[in-house]
Amino acid sequence: MDHEPELEGAQRRDNEQPTVADAPETSRSGPRTQAVQDFYAEDHAHCYGCGRLNPDGLQLKTYWHDDGDSITRFRPKPYHTALRGIVYGGLIAALIDCSSTGTAAAAIYHAEDRDFDSQPPVRCVTAALHVDYLRPTPIDETLEVRGHVKELKGKKVVVVSTLSAGGEVCARGEVVAIRVPGVEAGG
Amino acid sequence: MDHEPELEGAQRRDNEQPTVADAPETSRSGPRTQAVQDFYAEDHAHCYGCGRLNPDGLQLKTYWHDDGDSITRFRPKPYHTALRGIVYGGLIAALIDCSSTGTAAAAIYHAEDRDFDSQPPVRCVTAALHVDYLRPTPIDETLEVRGHVKELKGKKVVVVSTLSAGGEVCARGEVVAIRVPGVEAGG
Repeated sequence: MDHEPELEGAQRRDNEQPTVADAPETSRSGPRTQAVQDFYAEDHAHCYGCGRLNPDGLQLKTYWHDDGDSITRFRPKPYHTALRGIVYGGLIAALIDCSSTGTAAAAIYHAEDRDFDSQPPVRCVTAALHVDYLRPTPIDETLEVRGHVKELKGKKVVVVSTLSAGGEVCARGEVVAIRVPGVEAGG
Repeated sequence: MDHEPELEGAQRRDNEQPTVADAPETSRSGPRTQAVQDFYAEDHAHCYGCGRLNPDGLQLKTYWHDDGDSITRFRPKPYHTALRGIVYGGLIAALIDCSSTGTAAAAIYHAEDRDFDSQPPVRCVTAALHVDYLRPTPIDETLEVRGHVKELKGKKVVVVSTLSAGGEVCARGEVVAIRVPGVEAGG
């Protein structure tokens, strides 16, 4: 189960509802328990933010639900600080960026009614990124980005998201993602 | 001269014009050769992006010219990749973010007609960040962010910027920065 999201037990509250990432593996009509990024073609899996083949990177993993939503969790390191005790904005931008391109790729698979491991593989890049920082994001919490597909039209996918810590929304994002042409090699 | 920007000789072209960062130190009527971030108060100098006291961070340095412009250079590491050979968008967002808050702080000092080491120290955080990724940013170039103060009104500063590689603009940014209250300790 190396693809299970890392959800720290200490961060889990007793009354927390099951999430996309907690759900069992099902068909395409429900949540998928393998991350989108686990299926990125090998030559496209070195992103510092979300590449599984980048040992120096953040290795973000985005879990998709076929209703058009996604979830990505990340526990910041102590050095990811802005002012003391607060997550630095560049990391928040990176989380929103990579989770959104992952969500966009998943949305395209879903629109084409096919599995993440079908050919040709899908990979998206960012054309525009917007982040509103609503409040300081505490560094001692697991951050949760919930993405939602706002628009899918051809190669363009618009993903809106919230970034929460301890159940409180700290930032909102909107990403315009574009499908990369010519990704042929399977992951 | 440990505050001089690191400009790789190999990246320098013979016909390149002098820049803010190359100019000698002068009064407040000209460019300043110490980075804005070198004057951040000690308790506010741990940012992963631009804190001089964060040994794990990027340690970005922004040089200000009193005409309202700034320059920030950074050489990506090989692991800062998105797709192969291309800088990942989260790093670009971080460069635009931190260079803009640095530029905003400098603009406030300038508006108050005082030096960076005068009291009280100024520190800004990001309220909103927007990045348009215009073309792939090559990873084997020194990146240059040029910031410009578009608006300064009270505690709010809007900074627009371009990020270039090899003389070509690869991304544009706009940041709304807000002055942090209560920064008292000198850096």
